Amino acid sequence: MLGTTYDKQNCSAARALEAVGERWSLLILRDALFRGMSRFSEFERSLGLAPNILAKRLEGFLASEILQKATDEDGVDHYKPTNKGLAFKPVIAALTAWGDRWAAPNGAPVHFEHENCGGHIENQLHCTQCGQVSNMRHVMAVPNRKPGSRRGAA
Amino acid sequence: MLGTTYDKQNCSAARALEAVGERWSLLILRDALFRGMSRFSEFERSLGLAPNILAKRLEGFLASEILQKATDEDGVDHYKPTNKGLAFKPVIAALTAWGDRWAAPNGAPVHFEHENCGGHIENQLHCTQCGQVSNMRHVMAVPNRKPGSRRGAA
Repeated sequence: MLGTTYDKQNCSAARALEAVGERWSLLILRDALFRGMSRFSEFERSLGLAPNILAKRLEGFLASEILQKATDEDGVDHYKPTNKGLAFKPVIAALTAWGDRWAAPNGAPVHFEHENCGGHIENQLHCTQCGQVSNMRHVMAVPNRKPGSRRGAA
Repeated sequence: MLGTTYDKQNCSAARALEAVGERWSLLILRDALFRGMSRFSEFERSLGLAPNILAKRLEGFLASEILQKATDEDGVDHYKPTNKGLAFKPVIAALTAWGDRWAAPNGAPVHFEHENCGGHIENQLHCTQCGQVSNMRHVMAVPNRKPGSRRGAA
């Protein structure tokens, strides 16, 4: 886990990365969030990883309440995203957009589509004052001076 | 490195995670991208990590062309983001937004501000057909059927 080292850093990005930074965690979450997989056997087949590792990662997602377990009428366990898990979709979309642009020599493997209307879904930074953000150099992190906010880390 | 295990997965999100998934990488990048740090000594002081680890991570960022090195007139090395590095800002913004909502018991440590106009910057999923995406359940990954795209992984 990244957690033990990052605990002293009051950084929401680091805390989010803890949720998916372990080997295979991101890919399990991708399959659960975007490919409709919920059974142990589905993840196992999709990723080809050892059952003990898969079991450990799924337990981790249950513990962090990113996935929840429900047993169907045939006694099969299903691991489905909670709202906390669903909220991770934009993170995967942002990671994917960067990887598509900078680390996909064969082109983007997938795109994201809006189920309702068939539109393409893109990840964007939006400025509440002036709209879309075109130049990344102008995006700055500013500490929130709240009680309990120990330091100004991004 | 996550790379060796994920190589068989044609997944842009996994490839992006490789760039920051190693311990400390994300926090170094955060300091370089959002806090204006560029010197070895600045990162060392900010993060309190061992010089050999910091040196290794910075070398990694140079190798992946996320940071570039320039020496100033006093002979001090500066590690500054490339365009590839700057393009990682939305990923950190997305990770931060999730962490702020779901893993920040003391509230959000920072917010992102638009340097030009002082507006708040938010990470959003945008649909090219119908605008903003309110329900994450309707965001689906669809394989791109391009030559060279080996499998339909997100």
